[in-house]
Amino acid sequence: MEGVDENLGRWPVSTEIPVQWGDMDSLNHVNHTVFLTWMETARMIYFDQCGIMEKMESEGIGPILASLKANYISPVHFPDKMTVKATISAMGNSSFEMSYRIFSEKNSGKIACEGTVLGVLFDYNSGKSTPIPDELRSRIVEIESKGSDDP
Amino acid sequence: MEGVDENLGRWPVSTEIPVQWGDMDSLNHVNHTVFLTWMETARMIYFDQCGIMEKMESEGIGPILASLKANYISPVHFPDKMTVKATISAMGNSSFEMSYRIFSEKNSGKIACEGTVLGVLFDYNSGKSTPIPDELRSRIVEIESKGSDDP
Amino acid sequence: MEGVDENLGRWPVSTEIPVQWGDMDSLNHVNHTVFLTWMETARMIYFDQCGIMEKMESEGIGPILASLKANYISPVHFPDKMTVKATISAMGNSSFEMSYRIFSEKNSGKIACEGTVLGVLFDYNSGKSTPIPDELRSRIVEIESKGSDDP
Amino acid sequence: MEGVDENLGRWPVSTEIPVQWGDMDSLNHVNHTVFLTWMETARMIYFDQCGIMEKMESEGIGPILASLKANYISPVHFPDKMTVKATISAMGNSSFEMSYRIFSEKNSGKIACEGTVLGVLFDYNSGKSTPIPDELRSRIVEIESKGSDDP
Repeated sequence: MEGVDENLGRWPVSTEIPVQWGDMDSLNHVNHTVFLTWMETARMIYFDQCGIMEKMESEGIGPILASLKANYISPVHFPDKMTVKATISAMGNSSFEMSYRIFSEKNSGKIACEGTVLGVLFDYNSGKSTPIPDELRSRIVEIESKGSDDP
Repeated sequence: MEGVDENLGRWPVSTEIPVQWGDMDSLNHVNHTVFLTWMETARMIYFDQCGIMEKMESEGIGPILASLKANYISPVHFPDKMTVKATISAMGNSSFEMSYRIFSEKNSGKIACEGTVLGVLFDYNSGKSTPIPDELRSRIVEIESKGSDDP
Repeated sequence: MEGVDENLGRWPVSTEIPVQWGDMDSLNHVNHTVFLTWMETARMIYFDQCGIMEKMESEGIGPILASLKANYISPVHFPDKMTVKATISAMGNSSFEMSYRIFSEKNSGKIACEGTVLGVLFDYNSGKSTPIPDELRSRIVEIESKGSDDP
Repeated sequence: MEGVDENLGRWPVSTEIPVQWGDMDSLNHVNHTVFLTWMETARMIYFDQCGIMEKMESEGIGPILASLKANYISPVHFPDKMTVKATISAMGNSSFEMSYRIFSEKNSGKIACEGTVLGVLFDYNSGKSTPIPDELRSRIVEIESKGSDDP
């Protein structure tokens, strides 16, 4: 993605999520879709922090999920507590890349899953993608600056 | 519930839902919450038919789930195809009782689960329950009249 | 249920669960089935403590969910942190009643949902229900004794 | 992936899945994880057909999900009926690539989502990946031969 910025990718958002028993499927480990739900929660925490969801209500501008990738590194079981970290790792004109890493407390803090989504800022009024406003761009850089560069 | 009517409880709505592999939990059968999701789908099909969801958008009046009961009769496994039936079995002033039966194709059409929810018609403008309008009441009786009395 | 015991119903198990964004449905509050998944997690924590899941693996004896009831008291939204409490409130010969209360941090610790399930101890070898062994019964009373009687 | 074979990628498996109301999230469209659950169902239908799940029970050899990619092309709403197609598009020594396309009946049969997973055949006895046996390889080519090359 064009527009990669060294001020991005600093993993500023982190949240803890306990595994639910019902997250496991009939192979006796957490179903692969649940990791993506956890990433989504971290994404929404990030969006809350940068005010993107308010823009959605006030201006009809909001993020759309265009694609995702995930690597499954280690299986997870109930009970466990996961730490989910998120960062915006790149921004383009109207798109952004958000990355996630999920760590298992029971597995000594080792990584269980990593993923990346490509999001696009969408204007629901015009039905088209729209450039990321400078104000939002600055807010994201500010949030990233609070990260530690170390997921 | 007061207001029980012999014109109700005739099981007019029926929908087929294939079991997803991911519906099963680590006990290797369909998780108990999935039956309630299936009932919810039948409920929304019923609501669509009687126009209750449109009232929600136009007038801010809509149904609220107050309580539910379910009996788990027989376990279900992937693959299978379920038939989910729904009926409004009673109406009060502002509340209604909707019942569900879920049948398994693989288990010779035998019942797997039955449930009942109590719903209340709610006015989001006033923040209070509101009487079921006569128009909606008539529409429900009309829908029920298309049922067969035999779930 | 016969066999009610004043040593039961003391709410010994409590667990905290953050709301996931994906727990919300298109009515913009947490879907009604999610509360039951949270209760299930508290149930499994209880089962772990009383050793019932080990009996399942070693002897083929385990709990079956026969029925459930839930009352929805107050809607829940992301983000929030729920406290889920569980207690065995009654034991019969081969059955037990487990109750749950779910509290919302954001709503000043007020109750959002309460529920009760009826479980039956099942012998997968014979395909029949089986009496709750004295050893398990004692273990349950011991666990309950650590509760505070105040959910 | 090495081992690409022109006999693969012929889309032999197809299954229809109705959208559940509860599949929608608070943005009023089907949540992005649900598409992956649908793909998983098609994957399990494929696995059933090629006998891979039986190998898991009899020999402790089974597939592991290593990674996935998905492109979200068009949003989906309740009610709708999806057609989910699957094909093994490539096989390596111990790995395979399975692709999916999901079509919406309500949107004139247009594609809503496409995805690809990388699976690895795993020997749970040794804790290592294991070569795909010739017998399974032949069975997969046989299944693919029933496809139409046109998803």
